[in-house]
Amino acid sequence: MTKKYKLPFSGRAHTYTKEECEMVIDVMQNADTLTQGIYLKKFEDDFKSFIGDGHYFAVSSAASALELIAQICAFNNDDEIIVPVHTYTASVLPFIKHGAKIIWADIDPSTRVINAEIFEKLITKKTKAILVVHLYGFCADMDKIVTIARKKGIQVIEDVAQALGTDLKGKRAGVFGDFSAFSFHSHKNLSTLGEGGILRVKDKNFADMIPMLRHNGHCDFGYLREQYWLPAMSNIDIPEIEGRKLLPNNFSIGEVQCALGSKLLERIDEINLEKRNRAIFLIDELSSFDFILFHREASSRHNYHLLALEFLMPYRDIFFEEMIEYGIQCAVQYYPLNRYDLYKKLGYGYADCPNSEKFFDNMASLPFQHMMSDEEFIYLINSLKKVLKKIDARKT
Amino acid sequence: MTKKYKLPFSGRAHTYTKEECEMVIDVMQNADTLTQGIYLKKFEDDFKSFIGDGHYFAVSSAASALELIAQICAFNNDDEIIVPVHTYTASVLPFIKHGAKIIWADIDPSTRVINAEIFEKLITKKTKAILVVHLYGFCADMDKIVTIARKKGIQVIEDVAQALGTDLKGKRAGVFGDFSAFSFHSHKNLSTLGEGGILRVKDKNFADMIPMLRHNGHCDFGYLREQYWLPAMSNIDIPEIEGRKLLPNNFSIGEVQCALGSKLLERIDEINLEKRNRAIFLIDELSSFDFILFHREASSRHNYHLLALEFLMPYRDIFFEEMIEYGIQCAVQYYPLNRYDLYKKLGYGYADCPNSEKFFDNMASLPFQHMMSDEEFIYLINSLKKVLKKIDARKT
Repeated sequence: MTKKYKLPFSGRAHTYTKEECEMVIDVMQNADTLTQGIYLKKFEDDFKSFIGDGHYFAVSSAASALELIAQICAFNNDDEIIVPVHTYTASVLPFIKHGAKIIWADIDPSTRVINAEIFEKLITKKTKAILVVHLYGFCADMDKIVTIARKKGIQVIEDVAQALGTDLKGKRAGVFGDFSAFSFHSHKNLSTLGEGGILRVKDKNFADMIPMLRHNGHCDFGYLREQYWLPAMSNIDIPEIEGRKLLPNNFSIGEVQCALGSKLLERIDEINLEKRNRAIFLIDELSSFDFILFHREASSRHNYHLLALEFLMPYRDIFFEEMIEYGIQCAVQYYPLNRYDLYKKLGYGYADCPNSEKFFDNMASLPFQHMMSDEEFIYLINSLKKVLKKIDARKT
Repeated sequence: MTKKYKLPFSGRAHTYTKEECEMVIDVMQNADTLTQGIYLKKFEDDFKSFIGDGHYFAVSSAASALELIAQICAFNNDDEIIVPVHTYTASVLPFIKHGAKIIWADIDPSTRVINAEIFEKLITKKTKAILVVHLYGFCADMDKIVTIARKKGIQVIEDVAQALGTDLKGKRAGVFGDFSAFSFHSHKNLSTLGEGGILRVKDKNFADMIPMLRHNGHCDFGYLREQYWLPAMSNIDIPEIEGRKLLPNNFSIGEVQCALGSKLLERIDEINLEKRNRAIFLIDELSSFDFILFHREASSRHNYHLLALEFLMPYRDIFFEEMIEYGIQCAVQYYPLNRYDLYKKLGYGYADCPNSEKFFDNMASLPFQHMMSDEEFIYLINSLKKVLKKIDARKT
């Protein structure tokens, strides 16, 4: 499908350096084990050095990290979690699976993520947690959100899937809350061969449960063994929270992916900077068009994982048609979750979130993968100018 | 830990050829997307060609495949599933998670897997399914088991994690039942970089639900769209079975792993043959020791994923100690599941399975990775002879 476009909305974000490829082959051939070995531990340690305080666990995907968070939060049936309706479905579904009641939150139209004011208005006596999604690569107002949450005893969960490496006043996204989920999916600025994620847990007691929950219940026997094979190679056990038994999963990630993740961390700040520089350049080149709006954030608070614009007049669909003429594939993101059949069937078909609705219905996400060449990037800008001029002419 | 052994019980089974490494780099650099692309489809198609009839879905692990099977089976609280107590925990836990009542089955002491007679005795009016685990790499009596199951309307699930490529009368393990799970974990004769699995589903109606359940609910809208972005990029929906809503997961596997899986299928029969030839050679070399027992199966019904021996006299622990003297690390497998803390806490702490108990308490699993060199293999045999002779001398 993507082949027919000169500039597709790519399923991947970046290529790999020669050094990264060589490392992959080295680990493939020489690692003692291909899963649950030293590269897992190294990736977690390197990630902690990169992000900051907390306990880190590499897993199969960000969705797996969120599943573990949802398990650990131990929701009862009337416990509420505040979540943005404008996000990817995998942010939210784990909490429904694990017994939370979903409270849809709208977005701040200027940043396209939740803010402290929206959060505060949705708090009830039953609010147990808030999920903040740093969507598009922009780190939300975490200092304000966390201050409010701490006062009310609300758990703060950060979905950092798109915002790896961004920061707010020098603190990296993902280090503010009680739990965070990171993604290394194919679309992301850093991908561990297409799938992968990391879970961050602040509290040590919760963190101690994760290895078991991540890997089929494996844990040490609670005593020193003289003979490594007695009574068995390892124990299998089950953590409990407030009398609730948490059933383990297999959310393991392989060693090659972990080694590659460590290596890529060395240049994620550079990738983010290059994407941000391009985004700001493109935004400024198009600043004369008064019927479109970008979110312009020239600091490291935004990594421009995605570059989206909003139409302030109803030209979005014409824009898509015209862009196809130039062989450029745009995308729409993120369908308000309440509109999907899945959420309707689960009783979450209604959301009072006008900003999310308005934004989605008028937005376009540009092809913006890091691997785009300078020539392609210039072609994108020039095509945008032509298309927007044509639309502008129609307008007047 | 493994470094201190001359011959460790390795965490991996095989290395990769130059061609396989080159393919990994090619897909890393050139694939249109690093997940959910053409290599996923190709792997599934190639796997179908290799195994036989059915619908195939590549997933993140065999545990994920079993979770999907457990979801699709839609157990009610008193529905029973017959499962071997002598298996790895990931075979069984998904069925507990998804509401089945576990009925522990014993093993046939000569083959170390369940057989038709054991199965038949455990059937009740509430038996909904049986899980057959082709443990150690030996394909169980599937023709007899399936005949009994069909008569009683019982679903047959095959756990082929260890037995990829084996066959019974020309039919490959995994093609007999209603559902099968395959593993490409680091230990396996074919590993997709440490993690990975495939699910086989016989019934088309069930198969149609899998893509949704595997990948966050993604599915087509139920109508042709003129504009690819309206109303959204894709729908998200939820399959239902007997009024039960099945919540989706993210069990995706990356493109590099899928491409590598396809490639490795070309030589899995060769790997299995080489392992089996070595196993038979070793077994025959040790045939004079009357206090040990191997399961000798010189046909393609066994791939000798693992090579285990049983002590007919209580010398197992001495054997382990002596083998350490030669720098050889053996392992014990599989702790009867009812003995683990997890199963005790879930109410499954009792099992009437004397063969499983006896076998586990007297067994040793030898280091037997495919990547073992001929020198290492000869060293293993010679060390075994010396240790067993010493034990034999003590005996008399």
